[in-house]
Amino acid sequence: MTGADPVLAIDIGGTKMAAGLVEPGGRLASWSQTATPGGLDAEQLWRTLDALLTRVLAEARVDPADGLAGVGTGCGGPMEWPAGRVSPLNIPAWRSFPLRERLQERFPGHPVRLHNDAICMAVGEHWRGAGRGRRTMLGMVVSTGVGGGLVLDGRLINGATGNAGHIGHVVADPEGPACVCGGRGCVEAIARGPALAAWAQAQGWRAGQPSVTAKELADDAAQGHPVGLAALRRAGRALGIAIASATHLCDLEVVAIGGGLAQAGSLLFDPLEGTLRTYVGLDYARDVAVVPAELGQSAGMIGAAALLFAADRYWAGE
Amino acid sequence: MTGADPVLAIDIGGTKMAAGLVEPGGRLASWSQTATPGGLDAEQLWRTLDALLTRVLAEARVDPADGLAGVGTGCGGPMEWPAGRVSPLNIPAWRSFPLRERLQERFPGHPVRLHNDAICMAVGEHWRGAGRGRRTMLGMVVSTGVGGGLVLDGRLINGATGNAGHIGHVVADPEGPACVCGGRGCVEAIARGPALAAWAQAQGWRAGQPSVTAKELADDAAQGHPVGLAALRRAGRALGIAIASATHLCDLEVVAIGGGLAQAGSLLFDPLEGTLRTYVGLDYARDVAVVPAELGQSAGMIGAAALLFAADRYWAGE
Repeated sequence: MTGADPVLAIDIGGTKMAAGLVEPGGRLASWSQTATPGGLDAEQLWRTLDALLTRVLAEARVDPADGLAGVGTGCGGPMEWPAGRVSPLNIPAWRSFPLRERLQERFPGHPVRLHNDAICMAVGEHWRGAGRGRRTMLGMVVSTGVGGGLVLDGRLINGATGNAGHIGHVVADPEGPACVCGGRGCVEAIARGPALAAWAQAQGWRAGQPSVTAKELADDAAQGHPVGLAALRRAGRALGIAIASATHLCDLEVVAIGGGLAQAGSLLFDPLEGTLRTYVGLDYARDVAVVPAELGQSAGMIGAAALLFAADRYWAGE
Repeated sequence: MTGADPVLAIDIGGTKMAAGLVEPGGRLASWSQTATPGGLDAEQLWRTLDALLTRVLAEARVDPADGLAGVGTGCGGPMEWPAGRVSPLNIPAWRSFPLRERLQERFPGHPVRLHNDAICMAVGEHWRGAGRGRRTMLGMVVSTGVGGGLVLDGRLINGATGNAGHIGHVVADPEGPACVCGGRGCVEAIARGPALAAWAQAQGWRAGQPSVTAKELADDAAQGHPVGLAALRRAGRALGIAIASATHLCDLEVVAIGGGLAQAGSLLFDPLEGTLRTYVGLDYARDVAVVPAELGQSAGMIGAAALLFAADRYWAGE
């Protein structure tokens, strides 16, 4: 390998698996993706991923034996970190699956690093996106769940078990709904897409229809549907309270928000900002900027590559 | 100086100013304190501090010219950090007072470092107290205010402006009382001593008496007074919710709580723990341990000394 070799970057979620080649400067040079198939066992799913990686390398004419700087991976949590045994909530086929070890066997001699997918998104946004050049940043994904990653004092924070950054489980309403995590009133329990859609249905929006989505809800809100608008205000309020708490606690400069629900734009960001301004009081916290993420779907891959290219800031595992 | 020289450690609060000599191993070898006088101007207050420092050095027979490893200081916030211009809420005489600069003039040739007093307490507890050997810890002071400091991934977190660790302004109840910070429902607005005492008076405890204290309230609770007990449950609940949020977000191993109200012991810690267990859901977060701080009143001085003796972990300023 040479100093110009790319990293093979992988982003594994419950809906799709993506892989690409990221250059040392952070450019995603080429990539491909495939649906995450359901109904497979652990080995079948691994072979699906393996085939995707083989294809991405072949299309880019990269020989993994001497043309690769390493392999970086983001995967849905939870996981044992840094060991990289993954049990993604939305991928039942993998329970304590030794993903990092299997990738290491597949790419012998290369460094292989793995972290939570929301953390990789946050790292990507800090390295080359909305948090570029800032010392402190919270990156958030608001989608089927609410995840995130924390960069403080210029470094990715891992926490005791690699799980720091879980902004989705900051309490936004102590009297709020039970959360899948076992807690109560977490921002995720209120603002995640399926919870919002269910709340809207209970208010009469598309009542009785099966399998409505938060995307449809946001589309209807954009057309002026009052329940859709109220649902986005509800999500914005919960997010604003959680971000106020995180800003006071961590002295954040910038919060970058991506994920499907962030596509709702000002219908989400305006109530979020209004709530945030009600709950942040201390001078330093008033300066926080909440901005849309910049890298879109490539943030996770670019962040996974940064675990290798900018390891001094983003990698503290073994 | 030699490798065995002590640090002159200073802890400045609204009620008292303390100073002592801390050995490289973290032992507070000797110390003294004086009430923080009211009604003085900035220079008169500086001279009071100066006299305290002179006395502490003389009593220990330490010659600052060649027997000192440096000067570490904790002071009430807010402050400009790391410049060390302080405007302590509870010390009106000092507004943008250049404390670090004045100490530097007083002790030429020595490193002089300064941080928030609650941060110094947290650093002390992490270096030589309840968080010893842990990679991640939140240190808290529950007293006239609710303050704290964060050690994550083995290092003190400063945040964008040196204000990370403000656990007191995590939102515990979005419908809660207005906070002095300008926000609403902050844990400090509910659980700080004066707010608790005022709440208890509104419930009929010592109604109409002027200048009741949280100490008296806790003493009455220990005697079984129902309003006193309810007040401590109220504080414990607010603290438990804020700690659940911080634990999820920062993946904390241990939370060490000191300050006057922590003296109430199980009357505070039991409801705190019960609430915490309701609101922490994720597996990694359930392992968090909430413990009393161990170093008592010397934590702030020991932490101030650690800004010099263990600078690799606790000092990132200039």
